[in-house]
Amino acid sequence: MPELRKDPIIGRWVIIATERAKRPTDLIGPPEEFKKGGFCPFCEGNEDKTPKEVLAYRKNNHQPNTPGWSLRVVPNKFPALQIEGGLGKRGEGMFDKMNGVGAHEVIIETPQHVKIMSQLSLKQIEDVLWAYRDRILDLKKDKRFRYVIVFKNQGNAAGASLEHTHSQIIALPIVPKRVIEEIEGAKRYYAYKDRCVYCDIIRQEIDDKVRLIQQNRCFVSLSPFTPRFPFETWILPKSHDTYFEDVLKEEIEQLAAILKDTLTRIDKTLNYPPYNFLIHNSPLNKKDENNSYHWHIEIIPKLTKVAGFEWGTGFYINPTPPEEAAKYLREVEF
Amino acid sequence: MPELRKDPIIGRWVIIATERAKRPTDLIGPPEEFKKGGFCPFCEGNEDKTPKEVLAYRKNNHQPNTPGWSLRVVPNKFPALQIEGGLGKRGEGMFDKMNGVGAHEVIIETPQHVKIMSQLSLKQIEDVLWAYRDRILDLKKDKRFRYVIVFKNQGNAAGASLEHTHSQIIALPIVPKRVIEEIEGAKRYYAYKDRCVYCDIIRQEIDDKVRLIQQNRCFVSLSPFTPRFPFETWILPKSHDTYFEDVLKEEIEQLAAILKDTLTRIDKTLNYPPYNFLIHNSPLNKKDENNSYHWHIEIIPKLTKVAGFEWGTGFYINPTPPEEAAKYLREVEF
Repeated sequence: MPELRKDPIIGRWVIIATERAKRPTDLIGPPEEFKKGGFCPFCEGNEDKTPKEVLAYRKNNHQPNTPGWSLRVVPNKFPALQIEGGLGKRGEGMFDKMNGVGAHEVIIETPQHVKIMSQLSLKQIEDVLWAYRDRILDLKKDKRFRYVIVFKNQGNAAGASLEHTHSQIIALPIVPKRVIEEIEGAKRYYAYKDRCVYCDIIRQEIDDKVRLIQQNRCFVSLSPFTPRFPFETWILPKSHDTYFEDVLKEEIEQLAAILKDTLTRIDKTLNYPPYNFLIHNSPLNKKDENNSYHWHIEIIPKLTKVAGFEWGTGFYINPTPPEEAAKYLREVEF
Repeated sequence: MPELRKDPIIGRWVIIATERAKRPTDLIGPPEEFKKGGFCPFCEGNEDKTPKEVLAYRKNNHQPNTPGWSLRVVPNKFPALQIEGGLGKRGEGMFDKMNGVGAHEVIIETPQHVKIMSQLSLKQIEDVLWAYRDRILDLKKDKRFRYVIVFKNQGNAAGASLEHTHSQIIALPIVPKRVIEEIEGAKRYYAYKDRCVYCDIIRQEIDDKVRLIQQNRCFVSLSPFTPRFPFETWILPKSHDTYFEDVLKEEIEQLAAILKDTLTRIDKTLNYPPYNFLIHNSPLNKKDENNSYHWHIEIIPKLTKVAGFEWGTGFYINPTPPEEAAKYLREVEF
């Protein structure tokens, strides 16, 4: 069973895969590429090649794990965490660890072999967002879990191992350090200013227009003032909402629209780059403590490789000012 | 002039390059490789192709910027920060920034075109360590600086742009977030236990032997309990030392020996992988506040690419248990 281990100095948890561990020979050599024209377990008709679905959207067809779906959610075949068992919190001398319990699911966004999310229809992207919400609400019922991460690795260089467009969900028994930092930061700002830091950012960026990329009635996309990476892009709800899963139907439509628009701008400007996107959401079941937080999406194109230094220090050097990135993204034609 | 900008939520500083900014076309395309057999500005005889040296070790030759040296330190030709000017701390609406003032230097570790640090002689590695110390002591005199980072990018994939073995030094007017976290974490542990967390780690790992790689009289190399990356390796002084620059002559000899040994083990086990190493040192000029900190070196081989997700959440999935990594590194023959 994988283990969750806590760093005794800064308190960061890591997942250590104790089974199927990678040996030196697995780690050496040129990076893996997608197999061209190979078999795809995510395409319609290959439902028996994935673990059994935990959710699917279907029309006129109620037989699970057969064709006829428009979106499927299945457990990851090679999960980072295991769904069964208790947490088994324990020490190892001075160190702290627990069992690697959690859920790891894959959202297959379309039955067709589409490779790029921005090429899905608005309706399909809406369904992907509904599936995120449905799965968060379901996973929330499991009292072992304290956080659900929704993310997407687009392209091989961003960590995707299959090219068929898909997202991932990981439910964790701990809250990731970066999330705690954002929650605490937002709380501190709120305590000082009596305002939400994200709401203040949205107001200033809409006024200034320099780092603004696009907006609609409910959402705004922008280049943040302190991006770690070139063309890092955020999408935020204009209203102060703490939980992604509380989105209204109209908001899902507006979010799908600005997400498709923003991803298309990134794809056109940077020639379909690899990227990661993450929903930064509040921890589960702690309503009051999270009130000053404001959920949002962060999109990180993977364009630079100067990363080891940054991993070591938390100190980032970004060669592209966000003002220029926003200008490119605003002005691209499509 | 580059800008230092502070994230208003979590307080992380980033350097934004406002000149020579990278456009989309600079960022697209296959990753750059080293030019094979091309001209090398770091080789002996090409002293006029670098900025003028700030330090050099020479025998019987006192003419700077000419051949005859065994080690040279020069300003980086394309610095991330600029040495001249004041900090100019100011706001931009709700945001905080200052001028990108700092030093960015390159330590050319040998006059020969050697590509891999572990292939330098013990004496050469000792000299590299002395040069780190000499430069830290000199940069410390500049009252604008609060932190000096010493690091090495080995190999193209780890961010090196020239293959001739070299290290880098950056002096910063701020203390990086990750450093603050370690200092605070060590302080918290000390307050609770009345012991240094790193000293406790060293004691436990030497007793257990499972994650231990090698030790000599003054230093130990080990796989940490919570590595973020496969084969992440730490080298720590056995005595509780807060500042790298306080090392004694004997310690430099011992450190050179364990560094060469550890890098050789990594090179042999993983077939000369790209890696980053960093000296985690205390901030400048704040003796009392840093007392519970314990300087050390972290070496991070760059073997996996699943990084965007980790950047976003601070949550790491490591496919190689440190117990196995340490066993490979202990048992490799050379």
